[in-house]
Amino acid sequence: MSSLGLTVGDTLVPGAHAFSRKHPMSCWLSTMLVVFAGGMLCNGLLGEPILAPLKNTGQLIVATVVWYVVFYTPFDIGYKAAKFLPIKLVCAAMKEVYRCKKVYDGVSHAAKLYPNAYIIMILIGTLKGNGAGFTKLFERLIRGVWTPTAMEFMQPSFPTKACIVASIIFVLDKKTDIISAPHALVYFGIVIFFVYFKLSSVLLGIHDPFVPFENLFCALFLGGIWDSLAKLLGRGGNKDEKVDAKKKD
Amino acid sequence: MSSLGLTVGDTLVPGAHAFSRKHPMSCWLSTMLVVFAGGMLCNGLLGEPILAPLKNTGQLIVATVVWYVVFYTPFDIGYKAAKFLPIKLVCAAMKEVYRCKKVYDGVSHAAKLYPNAYIIMILIGTLKGNGAGFTKLFERLIRGVWTPTAMEFMQPSFPTKACIVASIIFVLDKKTDIISAPHALVYFGIVIFFVYFKLSSVLLGIHDPFVPFENLFCALFLGGIWDSLAKLLGRGGNKDEKVDAKKKD
Amino acid sequence: MSSLGLTVGDTLVPGAHAFSRKHPMSCWLSTMLVVFAGGMLCNGLLGEPILAPLKNTGQLIVATVVWYVVFYTPFDIGYKAAKFLPIKLVCAAMKEVYRCKKVYDGVSHAAKLYPNAYIIMILIGTLKGNGAGFTKLFERLIRGVWTPTAMEFMQPSFPTKACIVASIIFVLDKKTDIISAPHALVYFGIVIFFVYFKLSSVLLGIHDPFVPFENLFCALFLGGIWDSLAKLLGRGGNKDEKVDAKKKD
Repeated sequence: MSSLGLTVGDTLVPGAHAFSRKHPMSCWLSTMLVVFAGGMLCNGLLGEPILAPLKNTGQLIVATVVWYVVFYTPFDIGYKAAKFLPIKLVCAAMKEVYRCKKVYDGVSHAAKLYPNAYIIMILIGTLKGNGAGFTKLFERLIRGVWTPTAMEFMQPSFPTKACIVASIIFVLDKKTDIISAPHALVYFGIVIFFVYFKLSSVLLGIHDPFVPFENLFCALFLGGIWDSLAKLLGRGGNKDEKVDAKKKD
Repeated sequence: MSSLGLTVGDTLVPGAHAFSRKHPMSCWLSTMLVVFAGGMLCNGLLGEPILAPLKNTGQLIVATVVWYVVFYTPFDIGYKAAKFLPIKLVCAAMKEVYRCKKVYDGVSHAAKLYPNAYIIMILIGTLKGNGAGFTKLFERLIRGVWTPTAMEFMQPSFPTKACIVASIIFVLDKKTDIISAPHALVYFGIVIFFVYFKLSSVLLGIHDPFVPFENLFCALFLGGIWDSLAKLLGRGGNKDEKVDAKKKD
Repeated sequence: MSSLGLTVGDTLVPGAHAFSRKHPMSCWLSTMLVVFAGGMLCNGLLGEPILAPLKNTGQLIVATVVWYVVFYTPFDIGYKAAKFLPIKLVCAAMKEVYRCKKVYDGVSHAAKLYPNAYIIMILIGTLKGNGAGFTKLFERLIRGVWTPTAMEFMQPSFPTKACIVASIIFVLDKKTDIISAPHALVYFGIVIFFVYFKLSSVLLGIHDPFVPFENLFCALFLGGIWDSLAKLLGRGGNKDEKVDAKKKD
C-alpha cells in the first residue's frame, strides 16, 4: 500500500520547490491527482464516481504524509532521501510490481463489465497502469501550466507501451487459449519484465526497447515502404510534406 | 452500420498524411473519437460509461478498417476513392440518414430518463446528431493541437443548427399535440431535409439557409433594433465597443 | 429559488455586451454553466448524470429570464438595475444564504455516499458552494477564451476558502462530538459569517480575512521558517529560485 506514495517523488521538476511554497493547495491537489490518476481516469471512463479512489482514507493519509515529507521537511531532507540511488531503486522496483497489479485489476474489471469488448479491456488496463502519464495535462493545468503538445498519445512513453503489451497479454490469457502457461507464471513474467526494464532505464539509461519493432511495423503496415516506393517512382507529389516513417526516440 | 466509418474520410485536413505516418496511435485514437463522438459525449453527460460505445466490436472493426484504408493503402488509393465525387455523394447522403436516426435516438433516450426536461432532450439530440462538431476541440488536443477559439457553440455550423431544429421537432412530436402528422412522416421529412441540404452544400456550395432567419430573430429579440435606436438617440455611450448585430456567415 | 438567477449578473465583464450580440447561444450556455456549475461539477465527480441539474425546468426558465433581462432589455435597463447598489446588496445577501444551503447539501450528500471519506465531503461541499469559481475555465472556453493560469486552486478566492471552512465545520458537526452546539445554531452561524463577509467585501472593500492565518500556517508548517533558517546558514544553494513564503493577496 505504501508504494502508492512513491509516485510523489517522481513529480518533482525544476521550480517545484518555489511552487510548493507559493501554492501549497494547488501543489497538494496536483500530487493527489498524480497518485490516484489511474483509478480516477478509469472510473470516469466507466461511468463510476471519479472521486471514489479518495474514499480510501488510509491511502490518502500515506500519500499526504509522503507529499509533506518530500516538499516541506527542513533542509530538504525528504527530497534528498528520495533522490538517493538505493532508495530510489527500491521505490522504482516496488512501483513496477504495483503497476503490474493495477494493469491486471484494470483488465479484470473491464472484462467483468464488457466481456466481449477487447479494446476496452486493453484501454482500461493501460490507463490504470500508467494513469499519471495520461493525466499529466490536467495535473499541469491545476498548477496553471498548459502544454497541449505534451500528449501521451502522440509520443507514448515506455511505461505506456509496456502497459499496452501487458494488457494484451492479460486479455489473451483470460479470453483465449493461445497462452498455455499457468496464469501465475504469466503474471510473474510481466512483473519481471516491468522491473527489469525500469531498473535498466534508471541504471543503464536504456529508454525504449520497443523502438526497433515499431519502426519495422510502421515500415511494413503503416505506409513506410509504400511511401518510399511512391517517392522512387516520382509519384510522391501529393504528399503534403517530406515523409519520415522512422520514429525518433 | 457501415455508415459509421464514413465520417473518417471527413477528418482529413492538410498535413494529415505526414501526421498519420509519425503518430499512428494518436491518429487512430483521434479518428475513433470522431466516429464515436456523439455516443461518448451523451453517455458522459447522462452519467453512463463513456467507453460504452466501444463495446460494439463490429462497429469498431469497420471504423478501424476504413481508417486503415483511407490513411495507409499504397499510393493513397483509399484517400482518392473517398474524395471521388459520386462515392462522396453516396457516403454523405447515407451519413445524413444515419444522423437523423441518431438525433431521434438521442431525443428518445433523454425523454425516457427525464420525461419533463425538454432542454435536456434537445441538447442530447443535438450532441448525438453532431457529436463530432463538439468534440473537435478534444480530438485536436489528442493530436497535440489546441484551438480554443474553434468552439462549436460560438459559430454553430449548419449540421448543428439542423440537429437543433430536428430535435425540437421530435420533442414537439413526442410530447405535445401541435404536430398532427403521423410520426413516420415527420421522421421522413427530417431525413429529406438533412439529405437535401447536405447535397446542396456539396454540389452547389449553399452553406447555411438559417442565416436570414437568425438575423431577423437577433434584430427583433436579441437587441438589434434597440441597439440601433439607442445609437440614433445618442445614448450608446455605455456600449463597450461598436455593436454588430448582423452575424457574418 | 429565484436566487439561482442572481449569479447571472456577476458574470458581466467588459466586452460582455458586444459578445452577447454576436454569440447569443454561446452566451446563454456559458451563463447556464455558471448558474448550474456546482450541481453539474459534483454530479460529474460522483458519477451521477452531469445534465441532471437542468431537469428542473422551473429553475431553468428563471435563469433564462434573468439572462434575457440582464443582456437584452432595451437601453440596458436590466443591467443597470442589477448594478444599482441596494438591489445588488439584497441579491448578494440572498446568494450567500443560498450558498450556505448548497454547502450543507453537498456535505450531506457526500456523507450519505461515502460515510467515512472526510476529504470527499469537504471537496463536494466546497465545489457545490463555489462551483462557478471552479468552472470558470470551462465557462470561458465556451466563449472561446482560454486562460490556463486563472485556476481557482492556485489563487483560491475568498468564497472558496469560506466554503472550505464551512464544509470542515459541517463535517465536524455531523461526524464528531467536538462541536457541542445544536445543529441549527452552527448552520445559522455560518450563514451570518457568509453574509457578513460578503457585505463587508461589497461595502468596505475587505477582501480576504484569512490571509494572516494562512501566512502564519505557511511559515510554521509549510517551510517558511526552515527556508529562512537555511538561507541564514548559507545552505540555500539548492533552492531553484528565491523563496517567497509569504503569500501576496
